[in-house]
Amino acid sequence: MVSDVETPKGMRDFLPEQMIKREEALDTIRGTFREYGFRPLETPAIEKMDVLERKCGEEIKGQIFRVEDDLGLRFDLTVPLARVVTSGTFQRPFKRYAIGRAWRKEEPQKGRLREFWQADIDIIGTKGMEAEAELLSCASECLRRMGFKQFRIRVNNRKILSGLMNTLRIKDETALFRIIDKLDKRGESFVREELEKILKKEQVEEIFSFMLGRGRDEEKLSLASKYDKEGADELRDLLVYGKEYGLSLDIDFSLVRGLDYYTGPVFEISISKEIGSVAGGGRYDGLLSLYGQGDYATGISLGIERLMALMEKGEKQTLTTAYVAPIKEEFYSYGVEVVKELRDKGIRAEIDLNKRNLRKQLDYTNALSIPFVLIVGEKEKKEKKVTLRDMKSGKESLLSIAEAIKEIKRQ
Amino acid sequence: MVSDVETPKGMRDFLPEQMIKREEALDTIRGTFREYGFRPLETPAIEKMDVLERKCGEEIKGQIFRVEDDLGLRFDLTVPLARVVTSGTFQRPFKRYAIGRAWRKEEPQKGRLREFWQADIDIIGTKGMEAEAELLSCASECLRRMGFKQFRIRVNNRKILSGLMNTLRIKDETALFRIIDKLDKRGESFVREELEKILKKEQVEEIFSFMLGRGRDEEKLSLASKYDKEGADELRDLLVYGKEYGLSLDIDFSLVRGLDYYTGPVFEISISKEIGSVAGGGRYDGLLSLYGQGDYATGISLGIERLMALMEKGEKQTLTTAYVAPIKEEFYSYGVEVVKELRDKGIRAEIDLNKRNLRKQLDYTNALSIPFVLIVGEKEKKEKKVTLRDMKSGKESLLSIAEAIKEIKRQ
Repeated sequence: MVSDVETPKGMRDFLPEQMIKREEALDTIRGTFREYGFRPLETPAIEKMDVLERKCGEEIKGQIFRVEDDLGLRFDLTVPLARVVTSGTFQRPFKRYAIGRAWRKEEPQKGRLREFWQADIDIIGTKGMEAEAELLSCASECLRRMGFKQFRIRVNNRKILSGLMNTLRIKDETALFRIIDKLDKRGESFVREELEKILKKEQVEEIFSFMLGRGRDEEKLSLASKYDKEGADELRDLLVYGKEYGLSLDIDFSLVRGLDYYTGPVFEISISKEIGSVAGGGRYDGLLSLYGQGDYATGISLGIERLMALMEKGEKQTLTTAYVAPIKEEFYSYGVEVVKELRDKGIRAEIDLNKRNLRKQLDYTNALSIPFVLIVGEKEKKEKKVTLRDMKSGKESLLSIAEAIKEIKRQ
Repeated sequence: MVSDVETPKGMRDFLPEQMIKREEALDTIRGTFREYGFRPLETPAIEKMDVLERKCGEEIKGQIFRVEDDLGLRFDLTVPLARVVTSGTFQRPFKRYAIGRAWRKEEPQKGRLREFWQADIDIIGTKGMEAEAELLSCASECLRRMGFKQFRIRVNNRKILSGLMNTLRIKDETALFRIIDKLDKRGESFVREELEKILKKEQVEEIFSFMLGRGRDEEKLSLASKYDKEGADELRDLLVYGKEYGLSLDIDFSLVRGLDYYTGPVFEISISKEIGSVAGGGRYDGLLSLYGQGDYATGISLGIERLMALMEKGEKQTLTTAYVAPIKEEFYSYGVEVVKELRDKGIRAEIDLNKRNLRKQLDYTNALSIPFVLIVGEKEKKEKKVTLRDMKSGKESLLSIAEAIKEIKRQ
């Protein structure tokens, strides 16, 4: 009989071999966040619609999962943060991390699901680019510790493109940012066509010539200064501070990010061309004032689904190291004694629960690749010993429980 | 300006000092689950309504948060497990853990929220009470490691009460279970009144006399045998196996648990009278066949909200050990060098991001109780040293970075 039920569209189950790898990755990320002095803050998965919709932009608005009448599932971890920091008293700068699920009703594709995990760090209350350098250093360290040796960090500052729009006397820059944001996904000609629907050909030409122009950093920055000095200065600071942390940052004037709430620096980290960015963020100085007391704010989010999609396939079926196999039901009781002792000594251990014969128990441990089996029968019980079987070599030896534990720990 | 936004009813934010304690507790629980050989399996927060409603009972049905048209938020972690194990091939027994949020639209009260975390272990494919003993041993070990020394484990078997209902020729036992389940919360006279609405007074009398009857375990079990031998035998097995694990289990014939899907053994762990049970579960052999291939199944769930409510108030504002304080902006760059070195050596460290003077930086570290401050200025930079200040004693010493790290790690 095949199951007639499935997960909702764009949502998936994670089996043990996938979860073991995933928990490892999340532990690494969380450990790195803590090492950088970020502090955990959790908010509900559900927010009032009014909270979610204040500054997300039209596209995201249509992607919010509605809950009951006036609630919705969070589409990121930033908006909830903005809500909470304005309603409490937090020492500034407030360096926060959060790791959790978010939901968007998008068309599912490789590395993009409707339910996805994000790992975010944010800094509230810092004006200077020291904050952005810290975020990018921490995010890069996470990627390195997850085993990614090569990645590219692109940076920009929205103020510069805004300055350019001003020069061209373009009013609705938000609409333009949304179109430009499609550059990676849809390509240059698509974006050109879309822009030409609302701008003159020369305007589009100037925008593209600036965005895709080449040159050394100093040349780029001095060009950018003409459109917006503040934005260019911030970008320069970020490059300098980044360097202190050993980061190499690429200026990309076409980088804008999709969300409406960004006000200045924006950044993305990518690993492979096919899968898009694995981390991204920016400064959202204007967002907090929508919920209460305004403040400086900037953050970056690691996309866990994409990172996991890029990591090698999981191998581990279980984390169990030792399995206690009573050869008959009557030795279960002694087996429990053994398994308790193993666990007390910090060894991850199981015992047969199904009164199976030894053959079937070994099939089970083989299927899960559990490295050690401790066989207990008549002789073992009488002598308070175990027969330790190394499943790799097939070698067996009769040992006291303490000796067996020593042997297992030695490996 | 005060914030005009809040969380949805019955849902809450967790501030850093609460989250640090919470993450510690969840790490302890997860570590214990793994030590017992349970394997992680995650499912989406959202399920199709049809999946959620199959066997939850009327009360829960009304508490499901609806998402969009035909979806809902999970109300526990068991139903999603039942869905997924029937649709995949899992080695049996399949021992699974899951730690995550669930949602129920109930009236919020102390230790009961509309969004809550559960930590579950389940065993699929084991017929005997070895499974229940393993679950209760593992759950107890979690509580002990969280610092709870005293708790009470109550056990029962629904088959016994079913047998009694049969004897009394009562047909709708589900309705009766639901009423009896209110015993802890609403008290005896409430339950008597409710039962008397649908049963004869003598029937109610017999039910109560059995449920609340006192006696030694053997007396209770032999009485129970009259109503249902299988249920009584299972209960006896559970007591025996529990003893192997060093557990003391109390028979409580009035324990039924609220969910409709339980078929045999049920159990609850409680710590204090006021806050109800902190863990509970039971066997649900019938549930899996609603989604695909049927199988034996049993599980227990730790209620994280209640456990956290019982734990002492969190003290730690941050996990950061060391803070690097440049006395002027021009020493930020050398400070980054120092903070990088600290982090490379595994010390959780921060650096000033706000160009603050030393006084303000010390205020910040005091507010968060960060134990060490590494001051860097002219002299320190020139000599490649730091002034290490122990915030507790106020003692300062000029040290090389390596010496400072040694000193911090010594504490």
